[in-house]
Amino acid sequence: MPATNAPYTVPGLTEATGHQVGELLQMRLHALNDLQLTLKHAHWNVVGPSFIGVHEMLDPQIELVRGFADEVAERMATLGVSPVGTPGDLVAKRSWEDYSVGRADTTVHLEAINKVYDGVIEDHRAAIAKAGELDPVTEDLLIGQTAELEKFQWFVRAHLENSKGDIK
Amino acid sequence: MPATNAPYTVPGLTEATGHQVGELLQMRLHALNDLQLTLKHAHWNVVGPSFIGVHEMLDPQIELVRGFADEVAERMATLGVSPVGTPGDLVAKRSWEDYSVGRADTTVHLEAINKVYDGVIEDHRAAIAKAGELDPVTEDLLIGQTAELEKFQWFVRAHLENSKGDIK
Amino acid sequence: MPATNAPYTVPGLTEATGHQVGELLQMRLHALNDLQLTLKHAHWNVVGPSFIGVHEMLDPQIELVRGFADEVAERMATLGVSPVGTPGDLVAKRSWEDYSVGRADTTVHLEAINKVYDGVIEDHRAAIAKAGELDPVTEDLLIGQTAELEKFQWFVRAHLENSKGDIK
Amino acid sequence: MPATNAPYTVPGLTEATGHQVGELLQMRLHALNDLQLTLKHAHWNVVGPSFIGVHEMLDPQIELVRGFADEVAERMATLGVSPVGTPGDLVAKRSWEDYSVGRADTTVHLEAINKVYDGVIEDHRAAIAKAGELDPVTEDLLIGQTAELEKFQWFVRAHLENSKGDIK
Amino acid sequence: MPATNAPYTVPGLTEATGHQVGELLQMRLHALNDLQLTLKHAHWNVVGPSFIGVHEMLDPQIELVRGFADEVAERMATLGVSPVGTPGDLVAKRSWEDYSVGRADTTVHLEAINKVYDGVIEDHRAAIAKAGELDPVTEDLLIGQTAELEKFQWFVRAHLENSKGDIK
Amino acid sequence: MPATNAPYTVPGLTEATGHQVGELLQMRLHALNDLQLTLKHAHWNVVGPSFIGVHEMLDPQIELVRGFADEVAERMATLGVSPVGTPGDLVAKRSWEDYSVGRADTTVHLEAINKVYDGVIEDHRAAIAKAGELDPVTEDLLIGQTAELEKFQWFVRAHLENSKGDIK
Amino acid sequence: MPATNAPYTVPGLTEATGHQVGELLQMRLHALNDLQLTLKHAHWNVVGPSFIGVHEMLDPQIELVRGFADEVAERMATLGVSPVGTPGDLVAKRSWEDYSVGRADTTVHLEAINKVYDGVIEDHRAAIAKAGELDPVTEDLLIGQTAELEKFQWFVRAHLENSKGDIK
Amino acid sequence: MPATNAPYTVPGLTEATGHQVGELLQMRLHALNDLQLTLKHAHWNVVGPSFIGVHEMLDPQIELVRGFADEVAERMATLGVSPVGTPGDLVAKRSWEDYSVGRADTTVHLEAINKVYDGVIEDHRAAIAKAGELDPVTEDLLIGQTAELEKFQWFVRAHLENSKGDIK
Amino acid sequence: MPATNAPYTVPGLTEATGHQVGELLQMRLHALNDLQLTLKHAHWNVVGPSFIGVHEMLDPQIELVRGFADEVAERMATLGVSPVGTPGDLVAKRSWEDYSVGRADTTVHLEAINKVYDGVIEDHRAAIAKAGELDPVTEDLLIGQTAELEKFQWFVRAHLENSKGDIK
Amino acid sequence: MPATNAPYTVPGLTEATGHQVGELLQMRLHALNDLQLTLKHAHWNVVGPSFIGVHEMLDPQIELVRGFADEVAERMATLGVSPVGTPGDLVAKRSWEDYSVGRADTTVHLEAINKVYDGVIEDHRAAIAKAGELDPVTEDLLIGQTAELEKFQWFVRAHLENSKGDIK
Amino acid sequence: MPATNAPYTVPGLTEATGHQVGELLQMRLHALNDLQLTLKHAHWNVVGPSFIGVHEMLDPQIELVRGFADEVAERMATLGVSPVGTPGDLVAKRSWEDYSVGRADTTVHLEAINKVYDGVIEDHRAAIAKAGELDPVTEDLLIGQTAELEKFQWFVRAHLENSKGDIK
Amino acid sequence: MPATNAPYTVPGLTEATGHQVGELLQMRLHALNDLQLTLKHAHWNVVGPSFIGVHEMLDPQIELVRGFADEVAERMATLGVSPVGTPGDLVAKRSWEDYSVGRADTTVHLEAINKVYDGVIEDHRAAIAKAGELDPVTEDLLIGQTAELEKFQWFVRAHLENSKGDIK
Repeated sequence: MPATNAPYTVPGLTEATGHQVGELLQMRLHALNDLQLTLKHAHWNVVGPSFIGVHEMLDPQIELVRGFADEVAERMATLGVSPVGTPGDLVAKRSWEDYSVGRADTTVHLEAINKVYDGVIEDHRAAIAKAGELDPVTEDLLIGQTAELEKFQWFVRAHLENSKGDIK
Repeated sequence: MPATNAPYTVPGLTEATGHQVGELLQMRLHALNDLQLTLKHAHWNVVGPSFIGVHEMLDPQIELVRGFADEVAERMATLGVSPVGTPGDLVAKRSWEDYSVGRADTTVHLEAINKVYDGVIEDHRAAIAKAGELDPVTEDLLIGQTAELEKFQWFVRAHLENSKGDIK
Repeated sequence: MPATNAPYTVPGLTEATGHQVGELLQMRLHALNDLQLTLKHAHWNVVGPSFIGVHEMLDPQIELVRGFADEVAERMATLGVSPVGTPGDLVAKRSWEDYSVGRADTTVHLEAINKVYDGVIEDHRAAIAKAGELDPVTEDLLIGQTAELEKFQWFVRAHLENSKGDIK
Repeated sequence: MPATNAPYTVPGLTEATGHQVGELLQMRLHALNDLQLTLKHAHWNVVGPSFIGVHEMLDPQIELVRGFADEVAERMATLGVSPVGTPGDLVAKRSWEDYSVGRADTTVHLEAINKVYDGVIEDHRAAIAKAGELDPVTEDLLIGQTAELEKFQWFVRAHLENSKGDIK
Repeated sequence: MPATNAPYTVPGLTEATGHQVGELLQMRLHALNDLQLTLKHAHWNVVGPSFIGVHEMLDPQIELVRGFADEVAERMATLGVSPVGTPGDLVAKRSWEDYSVGRADTTVHLEAINKVYDGVIEDHRAAIAKAGELDPVTEDLLIGQTAELEKFQWFVRAHLENSKGDIK
Repeated sequence: MPATNAPYTVPGLTEATGHQVGELLQMRLHALNDLQLTLKHAHWNVVGPSFIGVHEMLDPQIELVRGFADEVAERMATLGVSPVGTPGDLVAKRSWEDYSVGRADTTVHLEAINKVYDGVIEDHRAAIAKAGELDPVTEDLLIGQTAELEKFQWFVRAHLENSKGDIK
Repeated sequence: MPATNAPYTVPGLTEATGHQVGELLQMRLHALNDLQLTLKHAHWNVVGPSFIGVHEMLDPQIELVRGFADEVAERMATLGVSPVGTPGDLVAKRSWEDYSVGRADTTVHLEAINKVYDGVIEDHRAAIAKAGELDPVTEDLLIGQTAELEKFQWFVRAHLENSKGDIK
Repeated sequence: MPATNAPYTVPGLTEATGHQVGELLQMRLHALNDLQLTLKHAHWNVVGPSFIGVHEMLDPQIELVRGFADEVAERMATLGVSPVGTPGDLVAKRSWEDYSVGRADTTVHLEAINKVYDGVIEDHRAAIAKAGELDPVTEDLLIGQTAELEKFQWFVRAHLENSKGDIK
Repeated sequence: MPATNAPYTVPGLTEATGHQVGELLQMRLHALNDLQLTLKHAHWNVVGPSFIGVHEMLDPQIELVRGFADEVAERMATLGVSPVGTPGDLVAKRSWEDYSVGRADTTVHLEAINKVYDGVIEDHRAAIAKAGELDPVTEDLLIGQTAELEKFQWFVRAHLENSKGDIK
Repeated sequence: MPATNAPYTVPGLTEATGHQVGELLQMRLHALNDLQLTLKHAHWNVVGPSFIGVHEMLDPQIELVRGFADEVAERMATLGVSPVGTPGDLVAKRSWEDYSVGRADTTVHLEAINKVYDGVIEDHRAAIAKAGELDPVTEDLLIGQTAELEKFQWFVRAHLENSKGDIK
Repeated sequence: MPATNAPYTVPGLTEATGHQVGELLQMRLHALNDLQLTLKHAHWNVVGPSFIGVHEMLDPQIELVRGFADEVAERMATLGVSPVGTPGDLVAKRSWEDYSVGRADTTVHLEAINKVYDGVIEDHRAAIAKAGELDPVTEDLLIGQTAELEKFQWFVRAHLENSKGDIK
Repeated sequence: MPATNAPYTVPGLTEATGHQVGELLQMRLHALNDLQLTLKHAHWNVVGPSFIGVHEMLDPQIELVRGFADEVAERMATLGVSPVGTPGDLVAKRSWEDYSVGRADTTVHLEAINKVYDGVIEDHRAAIAKAGELDPVTEDLLIGQTAELEKFQWFVRAHLENSKGDIK
């Protein structure tokens, strides 16, 4: 499905600039959709003595990430760029591998999730930098999302950490 | 990620039967995950004079379908079968194509969604029949989901229908 | 108003089967609409020393029955059969008499309501049996409604009963 | 079921006056009960591209009308007149025909509903005039209901209207 | 405490008229304050097999009556007349006796309450008539209160009534 | 923007009468829109030791007045008269001056607001009288609004009053 | 109305002791009923620049005091003593005068209310001491109420106080 | 299951005292668990013309008693004593008989429940006295529960009582 | 207490069949009552580093199980069979031992609870099979309960499981 | 009313800078007040087959815009600049014309509203740029508002758009 | 800041006694303020595999302790003693050391918190004893707080305990 | 307690930069903790005729400031820096004096609070500037907090201000 741009963008930006910002958000949308599916997958597959705490900790983050995907996609539409949200397009375009942990102890999942967040957050920060040159509204949206993603990564890391700050 | 079965299933079923039911649910999980992504994609891409009604009608259904995916996956885990919820596995295993409509009028999307529901519901009904021979709890879960999916399809069809009941 | 069937039914059923199920629901719809009106009529006409308890006990049941009528009618539409909900059609087609008690003591009303429930529930159970051969989704819907109708009839009977279980 | 009047009415009115007001409300009760059934019937039978908006617009009005029927019937009982709420009595006594539209486009239903409201509101206004001479409490109750019925009719008409105010 | 009038009243009324309306409300305030205390007294003193229904039926009415007293007193203040709400003034000025039933069966209390409502409602209706000549806002306020008081009296009477409408 | 009347009005009124009532509401709409803006202006500009109480007292009244404007405008539409709600039309048609107090002590604002309410309420009462001859539904709507406006004016006056009722 | 004691009291107390405790609560009930009326009276009659804060501060306390009266009266009934809640009995039995302030500045009312609380609280503390010798449940109930009454008196005093703690 | 005491108790009590208080609570826990089961049993088995009032009156009390059992058991754990909550231990240790009424009229159940409360409350009061010498926190907890149990017993007794206070 | 059957059952079943279904539910009621007590016992006695997660995980399940007991008992009454809910009868009739773990680590409790669920669920499934031959309403009720019991057992097992699915 | 600046501004800004930012917000306040009135005007005047969807879509946006006006005005006050919110000042100072559409089809209104948003958003973006040089707090407030205004404009445009993105 | 006593205290206590009680509460206030800060500090610094359970368990306790500080301080003010709540005064007057654990495993924090509670509770119990001789209202307030502090300490200890009740 | 940094920070920042940002937040945490204690201290010590408005105005701000402290501390942890939240550390490290007003009139407290806010906000703005060079997420968090702190300071100043904007 080729992305079709609308013949307009938000007032105050040139059409070219607006569309450039919108297109830069497409990979953020794919990353967030991948993330919501991956976190649910982990939610279903964690086992071990800390099961209930980790199982329940994931759900509010999933709710948040689903809201972020919606926010990013509607920002694209607002900027005049058609968002693509189908799984086929996501898998075809993404630069990372499918999450590879099945049924496993909470620690194994938390270590894998920690790595997933490294990728998502680094890319969000790169997008903040690019958006900052073009559109303060999009920049602000991405900053707000990054704050929450980083906070949840702290939750993950705190499980893995010992008192010297070392991560297993 | 090969599905690993646990060395148990629910009490009252043999391990083999329980795992058989759990495995039959894997494709239902993929179908529901695909459906939630597809409906959100449509939610973002509908345009035209009936925009707001259709845009808003989709969201409660998406909430419902996300809950159904959770319900199916947790039933799999309960039966001792590890659910796979990642997009890579979904795209690799599914027997249907990616939804192909981008920005388009509400009618175009509703016609395409109508076809998607034909597929999902037929497969759900086939799974009801199979589960009915093995496990009434899983059967009941699928019957409940099918009722809601069929009701939403009526919403979709009612938009496409004229007073003689013909569908465009 | 002749019932017009749509040129479709739910996926997985033949059109003939789906319409047969939908048509069998028409009399259930009339029965439930009659029931909500009859219970309200009783709600307004009970008198005597137990007034307040019985007056208030009826309202949640009326809410439930109104919801059941909606559920049955929307199931008909989903199956491709046009539901008829007007009072003229109801009175013309029903096989039972108008409720005949006016202002009367709570016991007189509860005895009359008990008989009304005998009729509605027997017919619901007959419809469960027929639907069970054709469509598990409709069967499940009717089972759920019957459970609630029977529970409320217990409330009614418990007022009329003495400790040996005899009903006045 | 012959209406039986109680040997009392509200303090401050003569028994004859109170009962006269109560009896004048019986046809208002029948009209409101007919209206709630008719609006639900339309709710289930509308089709066409504006389906979802009209389908959902009807439900809050139905809730309101059901509340109005309750209010009128309880006013009758308060005035010492036994309200009759059964469908047989309604159909036997009403001066209008059953609503005659089955499955049809939203516009067809809205046109028919517009006519139904013409009848109900004219009769409510006539009852306001009569009650105004006898009992300000009943008058006030009917004025409040008429305000809401007229507002909903505006919703209906606004769908049918063009910018010159013409109604199809 | 002599009632002191303010040197103003609501815009659109002469000061004399506004104060006349305000003064006419003083006895309504005393009647409503007496009523809330009397109903609570009954709430605490009812006994017998129908205890719980009657005990609980009184509380929402007490809430309502307390709200009516507030409404009447604030209307007086709005009209420029100082409302007097103390028990000494109430007892000194009222024309009726203290409620005389102590611990007694629900029926005895309901019969006594029925008589109390006869008095309160007749006086409210007389005040409606007087206010109707002077100030439609006050008239409307009293009509609204009377509707609720009369409805509650129906609740009371329905307990005392038999199917022929006779009251014990 | 010339007001265009629709070729209908509410059932039971002649078209001429209905439109006459609707037109009489236009200045009530302007007055209420002016009032909501003026109260917000005062909300932002009060200063002095009683700041917080007055600042917070204004907000619920503003909510109410905004609802009244909506109610009046939708009544106009219901009566077949197109309501005009733009600031240009309001300023062109109004017979009063812009509120003239900027940053000032609470007492200065309350004195100015007291005068504003004198104007709005007198005009509402005049409209009640006119509507009372033509349409009891509109009359009732205006009476209900006036009650609340007068009650809020009492709040304002109570701040300005001393124990003898004198207003500064 | 002579107080009639029931032939029982709470288990674990002798009938004589239980009734003695119940009777000691009768004057607490009268004091609380007087207090709720008096606070409402002040609520309606305060004027001056601090009107809104004081007017609104009184209402939650009134709610609380009404709840305390209910609690005390139901404790009496539980102990087998019939509570008397009518205004005539209250005025006949009380040892204090009617509250004597009419329309007056907030400070005048707060000073008068402060004195009212001195009386109510001293008597509550005396009742705590007596109940403490007879029934820990009643003692605990009165302690809880006293805590709230004293806290509200602090609110009142804080308005009257200067920074050295002097009360006007 | 022998009760095992922890090697600690709450700060400020000696370990011996804390454990003594905890052990004294074990029979209170059994009594409350028995009571919640018995009240539910009655809730299911009452019949007769006052059915609905009594059936519904029991549920909030059951909720409360379940909360009291939890409160008592967690206080035991806090004091360092392991609470035993199993039905086998309850039946083995209790000094009273199983409730013996099956399906019966509300009055029969209320009489039996009245006796049950005599026992539970007397034992609670004895425990208050013992706890009062050892631990004010536990004493306060039991006083609070006793107040509610006694109030509910009044509800029960009020059904059985006539106006002279005699209990059938 | 001998179970007394009423001289009726639900409409559409023979009295014999209805009573047979009701009687088969008696042991389900005992099992569910035992389960709610046992889970609370565990809730109070778990210790160890995972305390808080397990302690809190049990409460919603206890709420659910209490609701299931209510549902089963009210179904029995509806079918005309008197439910027995007393602890004496439960302990006398049950075929299993009292839960035997006192204060213990979360893992010890979870292993014991896992075994308890094996028993309850197997018996529920056997009852589903029997009910399925006699009464679809009761069958459906038991299927719904089993789904939730099995899901909670998965929570328990997930704590005990390692990544190969082995349970300690 | 000449704007009076306070002799202070927020800490960390010079008084001159703070006041400069505050003054730049005055026209944003006028634009937002104009917008809330204009959207309500459209809410009342839309007609045609898509009436209900557009009528209801406007209300949450109006709520939002009213909140934005409040936020901007309170920011001005915080910065030491007196906000002017009266309609006379708005009409005298604005650089745009009154909205000119009366009763008209939804499409006509949506096209006109689309143009209104072009103006408001362009000016908001210009203000973001200016505020960004002076005060990051004000800049952030305007960015947040712009995001929501742009999103609502997308709703408007989506109605006007066809699948190629062309706007009528 | 020297504590200044007011020239009054609660009615029924001598001024000297009331102030003595108030002063005894000052160190309770400092202890509770210290506790809320310390628990938040731990909330931020716990790490390790049980992170989420302990992190979340602390927040409701912090809410409670903040409420206790408010309750104690307002009791002081009520008694006529000025509460001091600043950190400087707290640190200057306290007899204990700053909490000394930084980032550390949950167990290390729970052990340290356990010791903190030993101190706070012992001092609360000592204050209960002193207050009990002087003022039952203050005594009751402290008993209620101690119950909750002790219960939370059980939560803490349950994490540290093994099945024999030993604490690490 | 020496601050220990973790061997990581948020993705996309170097460890050095992330830790630098985290450390800069430590004094913001101390300032916010000091502020919540100080505002509560004022809440308890204000007296005078405007008591209630100021007493109640402080509580929502305290809630907000406590949330800000939490937000800042969790951001530090997220950045890999251990937050220190104990009162000893706060008092040792802060550069300002303890708040020095005890029981005093509202105006005295508001003047002192105004000065406190000058300090907190200036330091927040300095931190915004530093964070802006290093980390946009932290910058955005501080901007959001500053907006609310400045708005509350306007509330404070508005009490102190006269109509020319002068502050006492």
